[in-house]
Order: sequence, then C-alpha cells, then structure tokens
Amino acid sequence: MNRYAIGVDIGGTNIPASIVNSKGEIIYTIKKKTHAETGPDRIINRICNSINELGKYLDENFREGTLVGVGIGVPGTLDPEKGVVVNCPNLPNWEHVPIVKLISDNVNLPISIDNDANCAALAEHWIGAGKGYKNVVLITLGTGVGGGIIINDRIYHGSHGSAGELGHISIAMDGRKCACGNIGCLEAYASATATVSRARERLQYDEITSSLVDKDLSSLTTYDIFMHAEKGDKFCQDILYETGTYLGVGIAIICNIFDPDVIVIGGGFSQATKYLIPVAIQEAKRRAFSSIIDNVVITKTKFVNRSGHIGAAKLAFDAIASKGSFLSSLLKLHQ
Amino acid sequence: MNRYAIGVDIGGTNIPASIVNSKGEIIYTIKKKTHAETGPDRIINRICNSINELGKYLDENFREGTLVGVGIGVPGTLDPEKGVVVNCPNLPNWEHVPIVKLISDNVNLPISIDNDANCAALAEHWIGAGKGYKNVVLITLGTGVGGGIIINDRIYHGSHGSAGELGHISIAMDGRKCACGNIGCLEAYASATATVSRARERLQYDEITSSLVDKDLSSLTTYDIFMHAEKGDKFCQDILYETGTYLGVGIAIICNIFDPDVIVIGGGFSQATKYLIPVAIQEAKRRAFSSIIDNVVITKTKFVNRSGHIGAAKLAFDAIASKGSFLSSLLKLHQ
Repeated sequence: MNRYAIGVDIGGTNIPASIVNSKGEIIYTIKKKTHAETGPDRIINRICNSINELGKYLDENFREGTLVGVGIGVPGTLDPEKGVVVNCPNLPNWEHVPIVKLISDNVNLPISIDNDANCAALAEHWIGAGKGYKNVVLITLGTGVGGGIIINDRIYHGSHGSAGELGHISIAMDGRKCACGNIGCLEAYASATATVSRARERLQYDEITSSLVDKDLSSLTTYDIFMHAEKGDKFCQDILYETGTYLGVGIAIICNIFDPDVIVIGGGFSQATKYLIPVAIQEAKRRAFSSIIDNVVITKTKFVNRSGHIGAAKLAFDAIASKGSFLSSLLKLHQ
Repeated sequence: MNRYAIGVDIGGTNIPASIVNSKGEIIYTIKKKTHAETGPDRIINRICNSINELGKYLDENFREGTLVGVGIGVPGTLDPEKGVVVNCPNLPNWEHVPIVKLISDNVNLPISIDNDANCAALAEHWIGAGKGYKNVVLITLGTGVGGGIIINDRIYHGSHGSAGELGHISIAMDGRKCACGNIGCLEAYASATATVSRARERLQYDEITSSLVDKDLSSLTTYDIFMHAEKGDKFCQDILYETGTYLGVGIAIICNIFDPDVIVIGGGFSQATKYLIPVAIQEAKRRAFSSIIDNVVITKTKFVNRSGHIGAAKLAFDAIASKGSFLSSLLKLHQ
C-alpha cells in the first residue's frame, strides 16, 4: 500500500502544505497566505484547514493510500519533544505556542515539528543534493543565513534544540553588526539583505559605473543585482563575487569543524549560485585544510523553495518509522 | 574480573603510557622521551617496549586482571579504520605510517588509534568535566589550539577523519596569519604561542609598564606571563584577558553551531583558565544566542596532561565493547 505524509512549511509570507509520497514526490499542494499579523491561533487554524483539505483530496483520489502523519517546519526555535514553538523572530506573538497540541485538537493524525532549515536539510539528505551522504550541511541564503546539519544520517539538534545557526558564525569579530546582536556574523555579509546593503553603500558613496546607478536604491533587491549581473554589469557581478568570497570564509570554517561529505547551498538567494559557488569554493580552498576541502562536495540545492515541505513530510515518515509499523494499521485514511 | 587497558599518548616531547582500569583510574605509568627526530620506526619501537613493560607489570601485580587492549592517541590526521597515521605536522616523517600493523607485529593485543585531541575529549566525556553529558566540545589551548567533539556520546570524526579542527575557525577573515595557511584562525589569537607573540609585540613597540619589560623576550613563555599576572602585573593580566576574549569569540561560534551541553577548556595553557574562562564567558554571552549560551556549561578540564592517555585507554575499552564480550576470554593476560 502506498504511504503518504503531509508536509507544511510555515513561511513569513506563504504556508505551502503538500501531500508527499514515500519517494519524496509532491502529489498535491495547497498554498495559503500566512498573514503573520493575525497571530498563532488563526495561522494554526488555516494550517488545520489545509491539512483537512489535503486529507479529503487524498481520500477522493488515492483511496488505497495510507496517510502516516503530518510534519511541520517552523521558522524558529522549538522544543520538538514537547511539541512547542519557543519563539519565531519573524512571526509576531509566536512564543511558547503548543503547536502540536493545537493542531492535534483538529486533526486526527500524528504531528511532528522541526525547525524549517532542519526540514530543508532533511529533504536534501533524503532525495536532494545530500542523498547518499551521512554528514550533510545545508546553508540557506535568504533574508538571513540559516543552516541545518545532518550527522550520521540524522538531524543534529544540539543539546537545547538550537544547533545549526550557521549564519551566526562570526567571520569578522570586529566587523559588521548583525541583527542577532553579535558582530561580524556570516549573515551580516552573505545574506541577500547584506548583499543589497553592500551594493547600496557602494552605489551611494563610491564612484561606480553600473546600470544600477540611476535606480531607486530603496527598492533594490538581490533579484535586480542578479539580473543586471546576467546582463554583464561588472559592478553587480563583483557584488555577487564578494558574497561568494564571504560564503567561502564560512564554508572553510564549516569544513574545518565538521569535515562533512557535502555542503549544500539553498535558500531564496541560491538563484545566484552560479556567481557565488565557484568563488566560494576558491576562497574555501585557500583557507580550509586540504585534507578536508579537497574531499567535500559543495553544491547547490536540488529544490526551488520546496525543500521545506518535502523535508517536513519526511519528519512524519521518520516519526512513524521510529514508532514501529504497528501504528500504520491505525492510520488508514479517514478512520 | 577487573579489566584494564593501556593508553598511550604520543606527544612531541614525551610518550606517557599507562595502565588504566575500567573506572578511568591510572594504575601505573611509564613515560619515555619521544625523540621525534628518530622517526616513526624507532618511536613505535619504544612504544612497543612500554606496552610490553606495562603488560609485565600488570602480570606481576594484578594477576586476576584482564588486559583488553591498547589505545593510542596520535597528534595528527588518521585513518582509524585502516589503522594508518596519514600525517603528523609536528613529528618528522610520519606520513602514511601503518601504526596498528607495526605495533601488532610486536604486541599481541587489539590496538585502537585516534587523534590525541579526540582521546582527550573522550576522557572528559568518560570521567572528566564532560561526564554525564551527550554533546561535549573540548578546546585544547597549547602551542596550537585543538579540539575534540563528542556528539550523542560518541567521538565525531567527520566524513574524512578530520573533524574538530576548532583552532582553525577563522574569527578575523582579514586578521593574523595562521601556521595552517588560513587567515585569522582562533589559534593565531588564543594559543599559547599567539599569546606570547601578542605580549612580545606590545613589549617591543608600545609604551608598557610591566615587570616583563626588562626580560629577554626571545625566551618569553605563557608561564612567565601567568606567573607575573599572579603577582599582580596588570599588563600580563590584560594579555591573558585578551586571550580570554578571543577564546570567547570562538566559544560563541561553537555555541551557535553545536549548541552543546558543555565546552571544556584543556591543554597545557589551561593553567591560566582563572584569567581566561570568566572573560571568555562574558564575551561569548555578548555574542552567542542566549537560548544557547545561557544553557551551556563552560569549564576547565579535570585533568592535568593526563586526558590523552586516559582517553586512549577508553578507546581500547570501547573497541572491545563494540566487538562483543567473546573476545575478552581470548585476552586473558599473557596467553
């Protein structure tokens, strides 16, 4: 019998929820707006609606299937064992939210939760760029820089559920201030936000020849920088190479500490990996132990914004696997 | 029946070899000079002599005991599964040395090897400052800065045997050059060598009031700096506080990545921990995520130069445990 899980990825703007089969293929997706300002109760309500709609869809279209459970990726610090979201920096009022209990009140399926970057790392390890490797590090480049670490084929959570804050490796102890309060974090140099800030600063204060010079700088995005780089704008290419260099400093540190099989670059900003990764590898080779860096694969994600909910679904498959197969008989669709 | 293992710690100057019981207590130690210049064959010969002398001692004094095997800590990069030392930066001509085979030719006991810092971390986890914790990070401050990582109660080796190079976290990407070729490594700021260099530079070029001003700077050691700090020399205290600050930057990074239970500071330079650790904690609290740093124990080693061979002995106990108990009957002393 085919097995399915539902994976939900709570983002700042959208909440995609998908039915995923046991090969990691997405069968059907419902995407709702987050409306972060409405707070946890209403957001959780919308998530429950998505889950129940997906359940109905599965029941109508795949009657022979078993739905094993629901996994949810949350952009914050969690206590997965208690099923509680401790806090989410980008979602107002998400503090000590017992999300598993709240969803379980409305959904009759086992619920698993994890941090969204951990879910993305899990997806890479399952069917993505980290498939077949034991030790996988995912670096997500987006508004911030995040990370997920797979050690010996399992997500490494650390002792208090907060491991893998790879964006908050300080590569310049006296450098740029980071939003986290630390100084010189990788995030303050290599995130999309930091890349735009660096471009803006140079456009404002330096003598620059670039097609961006006359643009309204307040609305500048990495997409603009990327598109102009693609059209041959040398300034924009250099800004991206600079981001790649900073990323390389971070990768060298990760190599020297973790000596992983593979480092995967994901996140929204990974569209620009053709500019970032070759430079990052060059910089990392200059810095990391050759016995490590020469053996580590550094590559981009295989997913475009789908790793979060695919990985969340894998949480549900893994939860059921760890509880043994006796549960599967209890979980036949809509019983 | 009491069980014993022999732990050997190959150092640059001395090679202590000890009989250790299953509680981690040292029963008897033989220390030989390394004479690094004599090369691997002669050094391995001396190690075999120590092991056989310890075997005899055990036979004469503890006839009822079982000697389960030998563990060896090596200051270099290893392939533990093949039993080969890949290289040792501080020992001439140690390249691709099949140490397990060479010792097994002369010693009729199972031989296990690991990196010396990993052995030290194992000792801390077994009976030291990391006892009772699942995730333990050891930072060794000495001539260099090394590290060992215990994840889920086991040494984390990485995918190519080189994980845990904590001294080669670059905390200042444009900073001091490190002997490893990288720039701004923690080792280039917080090792004993770096501490002496920083003191020497300031004594040479700055206006300093210190009892060290008239000292021959070429022979300056951290011991001098520590002893003068103890006598109230403010300059020496400041140099040590500065080392503690750099250490704190590194600890913050380690916290944000690993979120461990405990970080243990060891190594020869850990004599000065009363100056280093409080400042390091203060700096790390300024930098790391409070959800992590507020829950991590940061403390000094429980050992004085003994963690290497105690941890090496633990390797031997662990090897026998993983192979099952059937071997123990084959390994009765001198059969």
